Amino acid sequence: MHPVYRFDKSMETLKRAMKVIPAGIYGHLGPVEGAHIPIDAFPKYCSRADGAYFWDLDGNRFIDYMCAYGPIILGYHDPDVDEAAARQRALADCTTAPSDIMVDFAELMVDTVASADWAFFAKNGNDVTSLAVLTARAYTHRKKIVFFNGYYHGVSPWAQKLGYSGILEEEVANNIYVGWNDLEGLERVFQENKGQIAGVIAQPYMHGNLADNQMPAPGFWQRVRKLCTDNSTVLIVDDVRAGFRLDMAGSDHYFGFEADLICFCKAIANGYNVSCLCGKDFLKTAVSGINYTGSYWMSAVPFAAGIACIQKLKRIDAPKLLNAKGQQLKAGLIAAAAKHDLDLRVTGAPSLFYLRLADDPSFMLHQRWIAECVKRGVFFTSHHNHFINAALSDADIAETLEIADEAFAAL
Amino acid sequence: MHPVYRFDKSMETLKRAMKVIPAGIYGHLGPVEGAHIPIDAFPKYCSRADGAYFWDLDGNRFIDYMCAYGPIILGYHDPDVDEAAARQRALADCTTAPSDIMVDFAELMVDTVASADWAFFAKNGNDVTSLAVLTARAYTHRKKIVFFNGYYHGVSPWAQKLGYSGILEEEVANNIYVGWNDLEGLERVFQENKGQIAGVIAQPYMHGNLADNQMPAPGFWQRVRKLCTDNSTVLIVDDVRAGFRLDMAGSDHYFGFEADLICFCKAIANGYNVSCLCGKDFLKTAVSGINYTGSYWMSAVPFAAGIACIQKLKRIDAPKLLNAKGQQLKAGLIAAAAKHDLDLRVTGAPSLFYLRLADDPSFMLHQRWIAECVKRGVFFTSHHNHFINAALSDADIAETLEIADEAFAAL
Repeated sequence: MHPVYRFDKSMETLKRAMKVIPAGIYGHLGPVEGAHIPIDAFPKYCSRADGAYFWDLDGNRFIDYMCAYGPIILGYHDPDVDEAAARQRALADCTTAPSDIMVDFAELMVDTVASADWAFFAKNGNDVTSLAVLTARAYTHRKKIVFFNGYYHGVSPWAQKLGYSGILEEEVANNIYVGWNDLEGLERVFQENKGQIAGVIAQPYMHGNLADNQMPAPGFWQRVRKLCTDNSTVLIVDDVRAGFRLDMAGSDHYFGFEADLICFCKAIANGYNVSCLCGKDFLKTAVSGINYTGSYWMSAVPFAAGIACIQKLKRIDAPKLLNAKGQQLKAGLIAAAAKHDLDLRVTGAPSLFYLRLADDPSFMLHQRWIAECVKRGVFFTSHHNHFINAALSDADIAETLEIADEAFAAL
Repeated sequence: MHPVYRFDKSMETLKRAMKVIPAGIYGHLGPVEGAHIPIDAFPKYCSRADGAYFWDLDGNRFIDYMCAYGPIILGYHDPDVDEAAARQRALADCTTAPSDIMVDFAELMVDTVASADWAFFAKNGNDVTSLAVLTARAYTHRKKIVFFNGYYHGVSPWAQKLGYSGILEEEVANNIYVGWNDLEGLERVFQENKGQIAGVIAQPYMHGNLADNQMPAPGFWQRVRKLCTDNSTVLIVDDVRAGFRLDMAGSDHYFGFEADLICFCKAIANGYNVSCLCGKDFLKTAVSGINYTGSYWMSAVPFAAGIACIQKLKRIDAPKLLNAKGQQLKAGLIAAAAKHDLDLRVTGAPSLFYLRLADDPSFMLHQRWIAECVKRGVFFTSHHNHFINAALSDADIAETLEIADEAFAAL
């Protein structure tokens, strides 16, 4: 039996934080959005991290299935990535002229990503999804953007929703929403907005929160691609979350089509701070004409880390490796649930698995199970997809399955 | 006499870059926006940097008056900041739960910045100016934002202009523009838009591009503050560029008023990637309710760097030190110009000086002079304010003045 953790220091620190930080911890790392489990059963702060684990302020160790919400694809403190970053850091990082390593990294991205003729680096996923939309509008001289329900493309006003705090109706007035896999709906939208749709933006499959993840139906992407081509609409793939976990050549390549613009972030540099928009040649002039830049965007250390990360992911065939680990975990978790007469649904790509206990419409049982896992050292979240990293060992998976079993027993 | 540099390797590398990166180097670090001087007389890429210098691919050394466009306030590779970053890096950087060093940093910001009751960290200046505008709109339930002509608040659509590539009229429809120091104009705007103005956003003084920088007229800020208070409008100070170079307590404190929201980035962590929105207690609930987060936003290494940077800036009284260095340089540059019968205008805060040769409406003479300085190892730009860093020595300033003189002679 695994001991049940206490979170006293986390709670004390959160009290300090509440005084000087809005909501104590904001956003997706916060205790509310982060796990949807009781606030006193959750590690609020990290003291250190290594390989597949992080430790909280109370000294509790967690097998980490969130990987910093995606970036940590090789495990914390990957020696190859860290060494490349350190080598570059000794030369220069944030400087008045960019390092020429930026050119090396762009060449590597173009060489790696099937649909890429060029690469534009920024800092967050949000920076590059926003640039993609700006580029689609600049190129087409049209306004409307089609989204698929369940999407998340960042926090810029255009990517938020009517009624969200601080967002103006004007900022989302040109957004059109279609159901995932709803080709009829998409065709109707194209007909009703002839010559007005600048872009279609979509994740490679629907990995939204609070719902089972959904793969594209057979032929879905090929039909979307054709509709975009026929209507001179720019097809934008948001590969921020799934990128390099499905296919090193891009998730569009995995599903057998080519995006016009594809957005990468998270797994690109194993936690070093960089994102990237890749695109087709015909959009290069349009993107070059957009007023778009930021402090730190050309810092060299994340470029060095990104090069080392992409090269290593290719060398170890990370998509295959992560898929195998995910499959192993998925089968074990489903079996553990079945032992307790529970039906655990595991959806999405195995390397990005989403969990839901069936027959639990209020999510109460599900959230209690997640909390019991977290309290024993397996860091799952309730309503967000998870992430597998390459440092996760067979022993880690075995321990995870033991804890999952104990957590089911504790319900 | 200083030798005139060649830029052969920079040009070769730029040719490679043009193939895989939009515009080769985009944005404010690019050869066009970056200096407005001939492309073959300019170091496009940096090979290493240290203290007050950077070196390009051809081995040319530059005394750096751009400091990575602001972030490098202590000089490249500051030992205290780098050591703090390295210590934190050995523990954890980008993790699933934030490090508690985030709380330490927020406490330090609240302790340092006079108008701050809380701190929210992100990555770019643009992230926090955008959050400030969202917060003003969320709090007031109003739409309109007042800008001062010559402003730069980042690249999000709301901060761009009608006619800019990819920007929709809807996205800037609620922007109102007033001249800098034009109190009558501002009062008229408040009267004509009674109960509709969510926020006024402004840099602490007008440090725009392509124009002499302008300080606030006496009483300007006090009147702006009163107009905002009387109209329940949120007063946002964009201290991204000037922050910690005028006053450690914030540039609002320097000019004798209190902002409701104040945005920091650049000098906050000596080049480590972090930005910060600070604000008043009455806005804490509003900002907490906004959907706003990003990958890497809670990475711990930049927080450690930020703490070390702010503590050192306070210890050495950086605003006073940088002002003194700037004054010394300013007097020397004006004298060097006068020796050649030229009238050099040096405007803005001395630590953020802006240069312009008078009686040169086409800027041709000015741009030629800047190019002659760059070609001899002094990195100035033509139409952007400059930045002083603490590593700049008296010998560096003396060498800069010699080169400025030789550059005038070369015209």
